[in-house]
Amino acid sequence: MSVAPKSTNITWHGANVTQQEREQLTGQKGCVVWLTGLSGSGKSTVARRVEQLLLERGVFAYVLDGDNVRHGLNKDLGFAPAERTENIRRVGEVAALFSDSNAVTITAFISPYRKDRDAVREVVQDGRFFEALVDTPLDVCESRDPKGLYEKARAGVIPNFTGISAPYEAPENPEMKIDTSGTVDDSAGQVIAALVNAGVIAG
Amino acid sequence: MSVAPKSTNITWHGANVTQQEREQLTGQKGCVVWLTGLSGSGKSTVARRVEQLLLERGVFAYVLDGDNVRHGLNKDLGFAPAERTENIRRVGEVAALFSDSNAVTITAFISPYRKDRDAVREVVQDGRFFEALVDTPLDVCESRDPKGLYEKARAGVIPNFTGISAPYEAPENPEMKIDTSGTVDDSAGQVIAALVNAGVIAG
Repeated sequence: MSVAPKSTNITWHGANVTQQEREQLTGQKGCVVWLTGLSGSGKSTVARRVEQLLLERGVFAYVLDGDNVRHGLNKDLGFAPAERTENIRRVGEVAALFSDSNAVTITAFISPYRKDRDAVREVVQDGRFFEALVDTPLDVCESRDPKGLYEKARAGVIPNFTGISAPYEAPENPEMKIDTSGTVDDSAGQVIAALVNAGVIAG
Repeated sequence: MSVAPKSTNITWHGANVTQQEREQLTGQKGCVVWLTGLSGSGKSTVARRVEQLLLERGVFAYVLDGDNVRHGLNKDLGFAPAERTENIRRVGEVAALFSDSNAVTITAFISPYRKDRDAVREVVQDGRFFEALVDTPLDVCESRDPKGLYEKARAGVIPNFTGISAPYEAPENPEMKIDTSGTVDDSAGQVIAALVNAGVIAG
């Protein structure tokens, strides 16, 4: 899981299209909305609703989550701590590429470790990374248990389960804190409002 | 470099936005134009000109190449055969995600091994993968030698150099064969024409 740079024989050359030109031509700015929170907190649901609302506004948007990443790019990775770190590292790099393309990129991963999320922040352009805590309390997540995972975790069938037998390190100063006590549209609306407020999308 | 699936505890759920809805909302179809060819054949140059022409047409497009992938997502990978294979595997998965987002995705990697390119074809949606041979003869690439790599390869300073001391397995039935004997715009125009012809972008 070492990620020390090994690539050599690579030269950088300027893209033909500058960021400013790309923003003018696509009519939007790229960014990463990094949703983090416990299993069952509603990350994927909120992410996909935000994506839908943005697409309906004419904003090119895309969700990265376990569904489209764990079966493909990261299918070689399991859930041991070093593999979780590599999972988040790769997702962060892909999110940075999507942001560079000018997509509004929404990611939905538990991403329990602060240092992993901070490392992603480092690879995304300054001012374009929005850490967003999906702030659903553990007891609510556990009572929902949509996949029956908490039950298995409590029974010891699933080891190292975030919030039960493995730590969740909540963000200390997230750009967004999503209250999920209302409807999905309420939660998604909070993300949209924050993006408007940050000047990433039009109001 | 084993990529046997290890991820567990993942459930698939349908996206809120169907592919049809996404195509209607973004007004375009995603695809992957997979440029393959020798070092110095002009892959990156053609890719970035195609990207620019597409953006100017209002098509959301993005290039993946060594410049934005080798320093980030794949910075842990070198140039040994297994690492080249993993490099292409990851790029293929990322290209499939970009295509799924509806971006016209252009990749520019030597990708010398047929089986690696075929594996990428497998992960991209049927009918959306366009293998494109950048058909510049070895002697022309070597005479250009923009990075001085052929000289180093001939001197034995760079081992396993494609076309000199490592094989290049040309595609047998590529969807596109790009003639680079004219200008960059000539070459880029061939890609654009093929995309129009395939119904991916409007004519």
